Amino acid sequence: MKNIVLLIFTFLQSLSGFSQSSDLPQVSVKANEFIVNNKPFVMRGLNTSDPEKLSNQGHWDLAYFEAMKSWGANVVRFPVHPAAWRRVGKEKYLKLLDEGVLLARSQKMYVIIDWHSIGNLRTEMYQAEGYETTQKETFEFWRTMAKHFKGNNTVAFFEIFNEPTTYNGELGTCSWQDWKRLNEEIIGIIRAHGNTAIPLVAGFNWAYDLTEIASEPINAEGIGYVSHPYPQKRPKPWEEKWTKDWGFVKEKYPLILTEIGFAGAEEKGAHVPVISDESYGEAIMKYCDTKNISWVVWVFDPSWAPSLFSNWNYDLTRHGVFFKKALMERKDK
Amino acid sequence: MKNIVLLIFTFLQSLSGFSQSSDLPQVSVKANEFIVNNKPFVMRGLNTSDPEKLSNQGHWDLAYFEAMKSWGANVVRFPVHPAAWRRVGKEKYLKLLDEGVLLARSQKMYVIIDWHSIGNLRTEMYQAEGYETTQKETFEFWRTMAKHFKGNNTVAFFEIFNEPTTYNGELGTCSWQDWKRLNEEIIGIIRAHGNTAIPLVAGFNWAYDLTEIASEPINAEGIGYVSHPYPQKRPKPWEEKWTKDWGFVKEKYPLILTEIGFAGAEEKGAHVPVISDESYGEAIMKYCDTKNISWVVWVFDPSWAPSLFSNWNYDLTRHGVFFKKALMERKDK
Amino acid sequence: MKNIVLLIFTFLQSLSGFSQSSDLPQVSVKANEFIVNNKPFVMRGLNTSDPEKLSNQGHWDLAYFEAMKSWGANVVRFPVHPAAWRRVGKEKYLKLLDEGVLLARSQKMYVIIDWHSIGNLRTEMYQAEGYETTQKETFEFWRTMAKHFKGNNTVAFFEIFNEPTTYNGELGTCSWQDWKRLNEEIIGIIRAHGNTAIPLVAGFNWAYDLTEIASEPINAEGIGYVSHPYPQKRPKPWEEKWTKDWGFVKEKYPLILTEIGFAGAEEKGAHVPVISDESYGEAIMKYCDTKNISWVVWVFDPSWAPSLFSNWNYDLTRHGVFFKKALMERKDK
Ligand SMILES: [Mg+2]
Ligand SMILES: [Mg+2]
Ligand SMILES: [Mg+2]
Ligand SMILES: [Mg+2]
Ligand SMILES: [Mg+2]
Repeated sequence: MKNIVLLIFTFLQSLSGFSQSSDLPQVSVKANEFIVNNKPFVMRGLNTSDPEKLSNQGHWDLAYFEAMKSWGANVVRFPVHPAAWRRVGKEKYLKLLDEGVLLARSQKMYVIIDWHSIGNLRTEMYQAEGYETTQKETFEFWRTMAKHFKGNNTVAFFEIFNEPTTYNGELGTCSWQDWKRLNEEIIGIIRAHGNTAIPLVAGFNWAYDLTEIASEPINAEGIGYVSHPYPQKRPKPWEEKWTKDWGFVKEKYPLILTEIGFAGAEEKGAHVPVISDESYGEAIMKYCDTKNISWVVWVFDPSWAPSLFSNWNYDLTRHGVFFKKALMERKDK
Repeated sequence: MKNIVLLIFTFLQSLSGFSQSSDLPQVSVKANEFIVNNKPFVMRGLNTSDPEKLSNQGHWDLAYFEAMKSWGANVVRFPVHPAAWRRVGKEKYLKLLDEGVLLARSQKMYVIIDWHSIGNLRTEMYQAEGYETTQKETFEFWRTMAKHFKGNNTVAFFEIFNEPTTYNGELGTCSWQDWKRLNEEIIGIIRAHGNTAIPLVAGFNWAYDLTEIASEPINAEGIGYVSHPYPQKRPKPWEEKWTKDWGFVKEKYPLILTEIGFAGAEEKGAHVPVISDESYGEAIMKYCDTKNISWVVWVFDPSWAPSLFSNWNYDLTRHGVFFKKALMERKDK
Repeated sequence: MKNIVLLIFTFLQSLSGFSQSSDLPQVSVKANEFIVNNKPFVMRGLNTSDPEKLSNQGHWDLAYFEAMKSWGANVVRFPVHPAAWRRVGKEKYLKLLDEGVLLARSQKMYVIIDWHSIGNLRTEMYQAEGYETTQKETFEFWRTMAKHFKGNNTVAFFEIFNEPTTYNGELGTCSWQDWKRLNEEIIGIIRAHGNTAIPLVAGFNWAYDLTEIASEPINAEGIGYVSHPYPQKRPKPWEEKWTKDWGFVKEKYPLILTEIGFAGAEEKGAHVPVISDESYGEAIMKYCDTKNISWVVWVFDPSWAPSLFSNWNYDLTRHGVFFKKALMERKDK
């Protein structure tokens, strides 16, 4: 009995410990950089799996966030799947997010909230059931986020829509003007609430391609752009293609690769477009280092792919070995 | 037992009494006036609360309509909340409206049916849950009204959408062209049914602002425009601002203020933008008298605000004292 | 017991009999003709009623398809009502369609899958409850069809939307540009899946009027156009009006009348616009023969109108007498 009391006491202490952490300094945008304390700040971190999944499995907790911190992350990305959002319900999901934000803050890591849909928001057709949403639901999600996290610096980024794609036309059409308007509508909704989180905007081809930004950038100041340059999006050598497809954006705007990663062809969960090896890791790290590009590795979960570890003892995959080292080497730089 | 039979008999008589009232003369539009029997006719009356609420509380009855008539009203406005419409269901809600229309007719009062939503019909985002609707539901509501009340002169007005607002951008954007198109679509639906009720169109800023009408009026003949000039929409003195914001419309089109009213700061239900005093009443009455502008006071219910009376004995509020007198003084003018 | 075993065995044999039929030759488009085996091919056939209805009544079977074949049909049209699609559910309805396609193939008849809605797909307002759908559901229906029947030559036609109509404005507006865009979106979705079924596009006025095609044809190669020239759409004499309204299209594009038919004024189910007599049959047959226009008679069901037969003994109506003969006379031409 004493032990349980002690345990509860310790738990509550740790809880009040992280819940009392003071907020992080505001992240803002200046020219082509994210800025913290008046200095350019490169975000480097990790994707969690869906908070619903982690919570159901008992891993939406301090240990999980301490593990991410121990790898050297300064940012974590929460992929909120529309189907999970509906399944859990707004009030309970907000509690999950609140917990995650407090846990991240306690570890001095920023949070990206990511509306994790894949497909065509214009026609409302999606790649699979878990990504199903509507324009209305997407607008309301950001309305809710904007209102709920107003004034919260830890929630530094709102990633409007994970991976826009028409699936080569199977999901209908979406012009860049259509996509631009939808993003601008949502940025407007967020900012009308006085929320200063930085909106992150992705391009077509599953958030790979930002070429349209050259001629028709999003009509909003203070935002960042996103690419997901998985290894098989282009054949090697990558660098010139990356610059042409999305890297050029960093000359004018902040850029964050909110999903990178690889899986060896022999590994569990290997699938197009992620199959590659450490050479991809070397290339993308060198590319980002040279241009001060932020990045977030996918995914800190043993059952989603490409996994950074293979079980809840955190035994590392090849992917995990590479990016744990990459994060550690760049910690506090 | 005899008494009950007598009671029922009396009730049925009264019922058949009002249900046999012949219809009122048609209201039409000529230049900038509503016309009845070939003469300009100024509508002056009262807002009921939602028929669902009144029915649930046992007040959707002859006594209620006689009370409104006894104040001098020649028009009553029924605010149909989309959530109530869904909750009650189409068939039963139509019965409520039929009852209300027969009761109004028996008292020789015209009816405005008002789709009582508040928000942005383009993005389908609303101020609160009771106002949630869709473009489709709104179109279908008017299709139903147009079909059901075709040939019924008592139902003289269809107020398309109570209070359009983007809530300062929190509900996304809606251009005047967007709003114009939505109204024109609905007017087209109504008229395709051969229904001759007069469509009433509101402007932005919670139905306050009609400035866009100067350059881009709704493309339809025979309609009226609406403003809800609550006292705190502008600081005193009001008159010049009113003329600039919505009063100028009366030079070319019929104009009806379908919600006016005030609550003393000390009164129950006082809230922005209705807090004021009798000076507001004096000003708006003088303004309307000068320009032959129609008006409908909000609201003939003791628990909605600003209330005209404070309980079902019809004990008057300050607001009620003022506007009962105002109506009585203008009766039959 | 032996008899039952024998019966089952026979049934399975017949089933495997038709299910093993090899596929039909591909239908394609060249200039203004449908092409089979490199030669122009005129489709002449019959509309089934909704597969859900036939299945519920035990008639979605070989006997039914043999009957249609025995009349001389080379094509059958399946009208999939959106409400039936939802009621039955995607998986089970696909099974119904698979059965129908195998049965049609066994009889060497092509299949038109028809999304049998009536109304305005832009405003999502419809003529009656069974026709209710959304743009999203319509897109998803064709996505499902395109994926499911890819490579299946028997399913030679996808008729995108049965009868577009604004019901004289009661269902709101739809410009030709709106309608064109919706069709082009759906054709794009179908073809992105690599499905080569021929999309069929209808015009306004319940699929009667194709005049817009003259100046603004659908922007897609290899499609066919549809008209439903029921007798009362125009007064006699019809021929000049038909040419002006839809027949001119055949000069440049393949044309198929996916619904024709008549009912004597005295017959069950006679309704506008189908009331006429054999003179209509003569006129439309002569018109189609002259121009090589394809046609499909409505409807091979005794309880839908105009019925080709009056009971499940296939006792013919006047309509049935006429068109059974018309089909037989043109068999294999
Ligand atoms: Mg991904
Ligand atoms: Mg009338
Ligand atoms: Mg109001
Ligand atoms: Mg084929
Ligand atoms: Mg039909």
